[in-house]
Amino acid sequence: MRELRIIGLEGIPEVVRGDDVAALVGEAAERVGGLVDDDVVVVAQKIVSKAEGRVVRLAGVRPSRFAQGISGGRDARQTEVILREAARIVRLRPPLLIAETHHGFVCASAGVDASNAPAEDALVLLPEDPDASARRIRSRLQELTGRRVAVIVSDSFGRAWRQGTTDVAIGSAGMGVLLDLHGRRDPVGYELHATTIAVADEISGAAELVMGKTDRVPSVIVRGVHVAGDGSARELTMPPGRDLFR
Amino acid sequence: MRELRIIGLEGIPEVVRGDDVAALVGEAAERVGGLVDDDVVVVAQKIVSKAEGRVVRLAGVRPSRFAQGISGGRDARQTEVILREAARIVRLRPPLLIAETHHGFVCASAGVDASNAPAEDALVLLPEDPDASARRIRSRLQELTGRRVAVIVSDSFGRAWRQGTTDVAIGSAGMGVLLDLHGRRDPVGYELHATTIAVADEISGAAELVMGKTDRVPSVIVRGVHVAGDGSARELTMPPGRDLFR
Repeated sequence: MRELRIIGLEGIPEVVRGDDVAALVGEAAERVGGLVDDDVVVVAQKIVSKAEGRVVRLAGVRPSRFAQGISGGRDARQTEVILREAARIVRLRPPLLIAETHHGFVCASAGVDASNAPAEDALVLLPEDPDASARRIRSRLQELTGRRVAVIVSDSFGRAWRQGTTDVAIGSAGMGVLLDLHGRRDPVGYELHATTIAVADEISGAAELVMGKTDRVPSVIVRGVHVAGDGSARELTMPPGRDLFR
Repeated sequence: MRELRIIGLEGIPEVVRGDDVAALVGEAAERVGGLVDDDVVVVAQKIVSKAEGRVVRLAGVRPSRFAQGISGGRDARQTEVILREAARIVRLRPPLLIAETHHGFVCASAGVDASNAPAEDALVLLPEDPDASARRIRSRLQELTGRRVAVIVSDSFGRAWRQGTTDVAIGSAGMGVLLDLHGRRDPVGYELHATTIAVADEISGAAELVMGKTDRVPSVIVRGVHVAGDGSARELTMPPGRDLFR
């Protein structure tokens, strides 16, 4: 039987700066029978960022004139923080601001988020290098549990043309992020020449179904879907030359 | 334990026009223990379209001058079929053509696909009304199995700014397609005012992980994630007024 399981990791306490995310995830995994080799462990960006101290308090932020001008009713200090995380503004309809981050991800507010923040005036930023975050969690999990797993750091992104967010991978370690079917043949022999599947994004979205948003399930195990290779989540961003929607 | 299972339905034979998709899915489900109430049954668009006879043979197609002009090396008859399925061209970089379909979906080639087609010169089109397809499969499954399940018809779409395709919902029956968290509060009280999750798309992507592309698993059961309500997959398309990327 071909089956995939997505197992929520519950009981992870509120994460603060300096916490050992891998240890918290590993302990939670023990309570559901433990990790096995080739599991994919998906960790919500929010707890990774908090553990890494990627939190900004609005009290210390002075907005620029530009930030004030484009805030559209939002707290201009929040806009200022978003602009600092942005490499490029992709679309602006105040207060909506879609930006490309320094990592190359295109998303609302350059990934800056006020929900699930540690305090009312705090904003959580994306990790500086989410692939590195994933690699650290992965090697620490191996150290603690002896298991060779893959790790994805996920976040909720909106999409062009479609309503609602889906979770996607912003960091990855220990697995291929794209499954390339170029040259494989379907049953009647037609070459699947345009088929590259964003498996790491599909895994992240699947994980979100168990994580929820307001519930305290910031990490899940995805079992039965390991993809060979070791890719970076940056491979999921569209190179400018191929991007029809810049 | 909070868990979601995705169970592949194997052994479904090649589908042809007039086939009873629900019966084929129901029989395959019996072999893995049967359906239970609140399962979400995801069915690949390709078999739904084939059963509905949504197949065009190139031999009978005469391309317009316009189709010839924008084909960029592709068979102009294929471009002609794509244009007939399109309500609007969103981006054109021959042979790449991103279009809005008559349903309102924005995707490559207006959803027209040559892979896994029933013959070398055949193209498979999207169902005329994928929600209606999902509703028919759902009520027929209830008739055959006595179970009240939800049904999603899924297809692989590319995305702006990100590499690779993910499967999304193009038809739905028996569940909510968007999970609206407006007004729910996170643990520190910040209102999640911008959070609507495209659960039907996340479920479709999760299903793809088990379906694969070249393997014969055209349907899966997703168990443990039923969303209350009964939405249309059209709700997943962005209304023009809110679409920053038209």
